[in-house]
Amino acid sequence: MTSWLGLAADDLFGLDNLPYGAAVTPDGAAHSLVRVGDAALSLTRASAALAPSLAPLFAEGNLDRLLAAGPATWSTLRSTVQRWLTDGEHRAALEPLLLPLSELRMRLAFTVADYADFYASQAHATNVGRLFRPESEPLTPNWKHLPIGYHGRAGTIVVSGSAIRRPSGQARTPQGAVSFGPSRRLDIEAEVAFVVGTPSELGSRVPVAAFREHVFGLCLLNDWSARDIQAWESVPLGPFLGKSFATSVAAWITPLAALDAAWCDPPPREPRPLAYLDDSATPAALDLAIEVRLNGETISRPPFASMYWTPAQLLAHLTVNGASLRTGDLFASGTVSGEHRQERGSLLELSWNGSQPITLRDGQTRTFLEDGDDVVISATAPGAHGRIALGEVRGRVLAATVDRDGTGAPSGDE
Amino acid sequence: MTSWLGLAADDLFGLDNLPYGAAVTPDGAAHSLVRVGDAALSLTRASAALAPSLAPLFAEGNLDRLLAAGPATWSTLRSTVQRWLTDGEHRAALEPLLLPLSELRMRLAFTVADYADFYASQAHATNVGRLFRPESEPLTPNWKHLPIGYHGRAGTIVVSGSAIRRPSGQARTPQGAVSFGPSRRLDIEAEVAFVVGTPSELGSRVPVAAFREHVFGLCLLNDWSARDIQAWESVPLGPFLGKSFATSVAAWITPLAALDAAWCDPPPREPRPLAYLDDSATPAALDLAIEVRLNGETISRPPFASMYWTPAQLLAHLTVNGASLRTGDLFASGTVSGEHRQERGSLLELSWNGSQPITLRDGQTRTFLEDGDDVVISATAPGAHGRIALGEVRGRVLAATVDRDGTGAPSGDE
Repeated sequence: MTSWLGLAADDLFGLDNLPYGAAVTPDGAAHSLVRVGDAALSLTRASAALAPSLAPLFAEGNLDRLLAAGPATWSTLRSTVQRWLTDGEHRAALEPLLLPLSELRMRLAFTVADYADFYASQAHATNVGRLFRPESEPLTPNWKHLPIGYHGRAGTIVVSGSAIRRPSGQARTPQGAVSFGPSRRLDIEAEVAFVVGTPSELGSRVPVAAFREHVFGLCLLNDWSARDIQAWESVPLGPFLGKSFATSVAAWITPLAALDAAWCDPPPREPRPLAYLDDSATPAALDLAIEVRLNGETISRPPFASMYWTPAQLLAHLTVNGASLRTGDLFASGTVSGEHRQERGSLLELSWNGSQPITLRDGQTRTFLEDGDDVVISATAPGAHGRIALGEVRGRVLAATVDRDGTGAPSGDE
Repeated sequence: MTSWLGLAADDLFGLDNLPYGAAVTPDGAAHSLVRVGDAALSLTRASAALAPSLAPLFAEGNLDRLLAAGPATWSTLRSTVQRWLTDGEHRAALEPLLLPLSELRMRLAFTVADYADFYASQAHATNVGRLFRPESEPLTPNWKHLPIGYHGRAGTIVVSGSAIRRPSGQARTPQGAVSFGPSRRLDIEAEVAFVVGTPSELGSRVPVAAFREHVFGLCLLNDWSARDIQAWESVPLGPFLGKSFATSVAAWITPLAALDAAWCDPPPREPRPLAYLDDSATPAALDLAIEVRLNGETISRPPFASMYWTPAQLLAHLTVNGASLRTGDLFASGTVSGEHRQERGSLLELSWNGSQPITLRDGQTRTFLEDGDDVVISATAPGAHGRIALGEVRGRVLAATVDRDGTGAPSGDE
């Protein structure tokens, strides 16, 4: 496919990619978008002009109706956009509808329904176990039997580029006193998240084989974590305020159709998972090469292909109790960490809970995040004809609001 | 206030109560409702006829816009409805808009945004600690410092009356084998849940004193729990599939304004909570007398006034890290249990994890729920002139779907 856009053959956002997003333009108009190169085509405008039958999907300027429309529509849309961008006949109509990314204020691409987060990396779970339960086996007895997960706060999911206010909360000092104040152990978690399009009925299950009927696409996610708050609160009911202050997702949702060449075999699983988690019929892992940059410097390259539990297993497990899916549900992998130190997806692991600071190019060191730090998570994957990129997820840390005891409700000092 | 409806002076749903709900009538129309006695006034129809300025709030036939409208509108609406129902001049217009409850198909009264659940009863947390960590102190070290909580699945919240399908999942047998099948330890949790109306900004906090600016009202909630699934999955990230298959809420939302007489002093708290959790300025506990009935027989009377953490503390804690509120957020107390055996809010506690079956009137015994069991949670509270009732939350247990290994996706056998 050659586009009249004149994209380079190795453009990471070429016609084999075409992720979807949502933005507001300087005139205040909301647009559903598809990204191509360094521009985005307004699907809201293009469908109105060229494909009236698709126009209702994009009238609201987000992806909600597209997600709900299901796999046949997703496929039709993708081939329609590819035809539009290759067939010179549409150039005159579409060229004015191509918006430079720099002019767009990106928004959350869709309305998040429920947000579940898993813990699917063996290396990550092992590292965390070694750090926090040094007297026990690093993996809990359940870990290789089921994908452990929990629900997060959907209402504090923010789009890439949003500033992240350092949270305050309770923590326990090493001396055992309970204190209140800004988190001193603010961390990242590099994750991949999956976006549900097609809902399911309460009481039914989504088998591993039905993954593609329900999942529209994926995006990178940074599950910001306040380790001190989390450590104090999370026994026995799990993470809560240590995570709920903000979760960043990429502005661009990569459709599964762009990743047909990225499926690969997962690592061997022993013991063999129960039948409802059997994903051996087709290659079930995704070969995404993730990169984490702190203030512009690469600090980790987590390999998503190494995840123990695969995306279809996560979905099958999430629904095996009859829990229903809604359009807009988001479920994430948990921190992606590989076997090697330079593949760890959190500062908790990279600095070994603060005991081994990492040194940056400029000689600075980091254990956890400092105010002003800028974190970018990006990834590439095999595409149909070369590598494609996922949309990055970026966030900069703002200082905590000044509120010594947490009784006030200041609106921030930015 | 005397209504032209001719309500008995001690009617539990008199003019001092007036909870709100949503339903569909046999003709397919959706109505926002206010309950009075054994009937419900269609606010959708009544506002269109008598108060056009309020009509947009109820055009969708649910409470979403009312919740978002804020305290001044909530107050105006309540006094308007009380005037309508006392002033004979409106009788002719309103009488045809009073719908018998028996003709209504109740729906979830509002769109649930995020659902958080706490663990605020000291008796409950102590019982659970004794049962599951007999070798340790029953309360974890954090318990008296902060209200422990977690996020649940908003998408599987169902309205009272919905049947509850017994979930299947993984559990570990007493012999240590991992098995898959229908839960054998299906339980209830009698809870009180609070409905957020006014949202808050990300990065801000909702102090204890601002509770009534944000919370519209409350309702009873049954947090169905599969104890075997929960026990196997929940270390280290907390409850997940053991809870996410269904959570029932009452059809009627009681506005805080109906409960002015129900505030009372909470039990003494020691150590004194941190400043942001200081709720000593006004009586912060709510005197709700809860009753749990199994197949028509009362099995417990949990006293909500005994809760260690009060509703305003739950909300202050939920937001102290800057997490925002959205209209429709629901946060629940956790199981309400009193000091005495007959005040325990779960079968786990009532049967002491199955070791002390309870005996019912007909000689049957129960440890956990059996298929066909019908559970009703109800409550009353002091009102302005006598007791008022909360809307009950009811559910009947259906047998698990037949699916021995969880690989299929049957839609149920009902």
